[in-house]
Order: sequence, then C-alpha cells, then structure tokens
Amino acid sequence: MNQVVTAFAPASVANVAIGFDILGFAVDALGDHVQLRRLPQPEVRVKAIRGVVEDLPLEAEKNTAGRALLALIESRDLPFGFEMEIDKGIPLASGLGGSAASAVAAVVAANAMLPEPMTRIELLKAAMEGEAVASGSRHADNISPSLFGGLVLTVGIDHPRVKQIPVPAQIHAVIVHPHLQVPTKQARAILSHTVHLSDFVWQTANLAGFISGCYTDDLDLIKASLEDVIIEKQRQVLIPGFAEVRAAALASGALGCSISGAGPTMFALCLESDAAAVRDAMVDAFRSQGTETDRWAVSLRSSGARVVSST
Amino acid sequence: MNQVVTAFAPASVANVAIGFDILGFAVDALGDHVQLRRLPQPEVRVKAIRGVVEDLPLEAEKNTAGRALLALIESRDLPFGFEMEIDKGIPLASGLGGSAASAVAAVVAANAMLPEPMTRIELLKAAMEGEAVASGSRHADNISPSLFGGLVLTVGIDHPRVKQIPVPAQIHAVIVHPHLQVPTKQARAILSHTVHLSDFVWQTANLAGFISGCYTDDLDLIKASLEDVIIEKQRQVLIPGFAEVRAAALASGALGCSISGAGPTMFALCLESDAAAVRDAMVDAFRSQGTETDRWAVSLRSSGARVVSST
Repeated sequence: MNQVVTAFAPASVANVAIGFDILGFAVDALGDHVQLRRLPQPEVRVKAIRGVVEDLPLEAEKNTAGRALLALIESRDLPFGFEMEIDKGIPLASGLGGSAASAVAAVVAANAMLPEPMTRIELLKAAMEGEAVASGSRHADNISPSLFGGLVLTVGIDHPRVKQIPVPAQIHAVIVHPHLQVPTKQARAILSHTVHLSDFVWQTANLAGFISGCYTDDLDLIKASLEDVIIEKQRQVLIPGFAEVRAAALASGALGCSISGAGPTMFALCLESDAAAVRDAMVDAFRSQGTETDRWAVSLRSSGARVVSST
Repeated sequence: MNQVVTAFAPASVANVAIGFDILGFAVDALGDHVQLRRLPQPEVRVKAIRGVVEDLPLEAEKNTAGRALLALIESRDLPFGFEMEIDKGIPLASGLGGSAASAVAAVVAANAMLPEPMTRIELLKAAMEGEAVASGSRHADNISPSLFGGLVLTVGIDHPRVKQIPVPAQIHAVIVHPHLQVPTKQARAILSHTVHLSDFVWQTANLAGFISGCYTDDLDLIKASLEDVIIEKQRQVLIPGFAEVRAAALASGALGCSISGAGPTMFALCLESDAAAVRDAMVDAFRSQGTETDRWAVSLRSSGARVVSST
C-alpha cells in the first residue's frame, strides 16, 4: 500500500459563458499539487500550504482539501488518515477553480492509498464536500473538469452525472488573469435570484447551440452561441476593463469571450491559429486599464487530475 | 413551371419538456395539406379550409398560411400569387403545431412554383411570419421540426440557425391528445415572466444533459434529464389529469412525459418496445378523468414537410 502519494489537479474555467454552474473546462497549464502521507488514525492534518497562496486555513474542517479528505474517510469508514501538504499553483479568488483543484488533488492522492479505489463519481462527491467550504454550497462546475479533464457537463448535485463533451480539436482557450481579486461569495451575492423568461430562452438556445456545435464540429454555431446574456452583464462590474477586453478578444478573432467562473479571470475560445493574437489583445486591453496579468493558451483537450508520484 | 402544387407538413411537439421555445420534434403521423394554384397577380386568396378544423380566417392576412405566403411573395418580390386550399389534419389549439404546419405546407408548396427555389432557412423565416399571426410573436419551435423533420433545435429568431439533433433509433414518442382545448395565448399568459436562478440552473443542466445524451446514445442520461422544472408546473393546471397521466407514463417505462407545446396534448418518450404500454397507460389515465383522446406512437426520425403532388 502506498504511504506517500502526490497528485496534481488542474485549474478550470467554470460556466464557460453559457453553462452557469453546470459546464467547465480544465486548464492543464496550471494547478495544485497535494502530497499525502498516511497516518495511523482516521484524521486529517494540514502540515503545510505553500506556493502562490499561503494564507489558507490549516484546520482540516475549514480547508477545502481537508474537508474533502474527511468526507472520503467518512464515506469509506477508513481506519487510517492523512497528513497533507498543499502546493498551490492557482491564485486565490481568481476564478480559476483553486479551491476545487486542491480538493480534487487531495481525493485523487488519497484514492491511490485505498485498498479498493473509488470511482471517479465517488471522488467527485467527496471533492464537492470540500468545495462547499469555499463557496458556501456544493458545486461541481470546477470539480468535474479538474477531475475528469477537458470540457465537462455536470447534471445533478446529489446524484451527479458527468459528461465529457468533445470539442473541435482546433479550438483552444486563452486564459487571462488580471491582478485583481473577486471573492466567489461576493460574485455570487451580486447575482439576481431571478432570470427574465426571455433571457432564459435566449441563454438556453445558446447553451444547446454550443453543445450541439461541439458534438458536430460546427464552428459557426459555436461562435453564434457562445454568448452569456444572463450572468455576464451582472458580474462584469466587478472587472474593470471587462468590456474593452472582451471587445479586443472578439476583434482579434475569438469565437467568444467571457468571465472564468466568478472572475476576475477572463477566457476566450478561439482557433489555435488565433490564440496568440487573442491573448495579446486581451493583455493589452487590461494593461491600458492599468492592470497587469498572467496568461495562458491551452488546448481544451486534457486528461484531468492525476497521481504524479507514489511510494 | 408548376401551376398546382400540394404539400404536406407534419404536426410537431414543441418544447420537449426541457427546450422551451427552442426544441421540437415532428410527428409525421398527422399533419396539414395545402394545395396552391398559381394566380397571375401577387396576391393570396384562401379558397377553402376543410378537415378537422374549418372555422379559420379566410382573410389571407389573418390566416397563418396566408400570411406566410404574403411574406414569401414580398421577400422575393414575386410577380404572381396563390389561391390556397387547406386540408387540416391537426386539431385546433391542441398543442401539436397546427398553425405552424399550415404555414410550413404553404411555403413548401409555393417553393415548388418558384423559378429559383428558396433555402430551407428562407422558408423557415417566411413561415415564422405566418406563425406570428397565431401566437402573437414569432416562434420557430413548431415551424422548424415541421419543416425539417426529426428533433430540431432552433437558435435565434432574426437569424435563425437550425440544428437537427440525432435521437437514438430505439426511442419513440407517444402522443396523446385529450379532447380539450387550450388556446396558445392563454397557455402563454399563465407563465411567469421570471424564472428562479436555481430552477434556471436545474433546467439548463437537464437541457444540456438531454442533448448530450442524444448525441451519445446515452439513454440513462436522457431519462435523468428529461424533466421540465419550470414551465410544466405552471401549465399543468390547464390539463385536468396531468399528474395522473404523467405518472402512468413513467410507471409504464417512459423515459419522460410532459406537455406538448402549450398543451393540452401530452407526449412521452420511450423505447419502441414500451410504446404500446405507455400509450395505453396514458389513454387510460385520461379516461379515468372522463377525457377521451386520440393517440399516436411515432419514430423521432422523420423527413419533415414535402411536396406530395405537382402539375
């Protein structure tokens, strides 16, 4: 049985403009590493948190990865526990699924220590318990893509079903993280509790069009559909320069551009051949607002969380 | 050039539980026939309306098929016109897309008289102008499936894009039309203008799951997703026995059961092998409410509107 296991879980872009709370894709270029060491008692100790974020709770119950491990121990009635070290590669409150990635990396590492491995859906449920610590309620829209990789739809909360959606190979994603922080809870609080029926119809048409376009390599339909008419207009006030950055991305050939998760990171989907131009346009537009950024361009095809070492 | 053309357009089930105003499927077992005779002037005369509905407007501007033909004449600046006879096979205010079918049959017949045929998207737009007469605004959710056949998604109104969605071959539809009438305008008026955000998320998850399930032959996901959490609960009061009929369908193996369009017709999707049992259960449940019905069981694969004779 493995005594020490390290796992990596990628960052992720939730919502993807038209799939609020249900769609997300993995961003394999950055992520969190979690190293677990077996403890003789069923407990979780957070030994260290380092990397781009350090000031996270060391109390297991209040830490997303710790809470996920406790849920896993409970669900399997494990006789042993874990000492955990987290190496954060995802900035805090960036809208890139950092808390989800830590929880996912933790359960994937723990799974490599179990006598009988859990299914990915069981791991998803355990990680969702952890994510609830960070966002206030259970969501799978960052957990699922971080765990499974690629573009992922999650249907249901109590009995989640996960569907990996194929994306045309030539579509890449540009991710631009401005050096601003938007706490997820604030970004959720700004949302109206209701949606106008006409906007509902428009958004569902776009969602259905986007998914159909993905299954049929229909770039024209993907481009026409990749527009959020509900969430984006409410949250963009939290991102100074949003309109300019989005316009710059579209002017450079992006198929669509919107907010990654709760923001402030923004993403664009585009052809691989346009990715550099779209990235530069978005970075320049943020800079003209006085905001510096980090940026990545990635394929939408990736393999999700994985064990990177075990002894 | 053809002087007399007759076209058939099938009935259709709009909304399909999770695609309010955007999804629909054709029901090839019943429909409307429209016969057009060429007139020397650019005008439309409604000569006769017969069949299961007779008391429809004979004034071209107020008749859905007449209005669609006027839109077609205008869009092509035609130097000639049409005398029209309509043979209605679809009951009025049944929720089976009767007004849409007449408009579709009319434009398909007219198209066979044009020196240069229109595209199906152009025909769609003309038929939508006709449908607006019946429902008060332009909708494509009955027009598109009647015109294209099969299960059809329509994205956009001014620039509609149509996507035919593949359905697993073993899935059939049961259609049960109770002898009640629900005017479309009343069924629309009963709807709240807003949707709760949590219901919005739930419904979009179901829509995305249903469409993904169709593309991947995933019957389990289709069954889990085929549930309307927004419209059905508001409209079911217009259909005495709704809850009992739906429960009977599901107990007999249906993957899902909901309202066809604005009602009162109900539909269920099920495996072909379960279709007879589902149909009988729904018919019996309506009968126990004292309501007689017409019923059909059809494949979801069909070819849409077509010319049936021309001279």
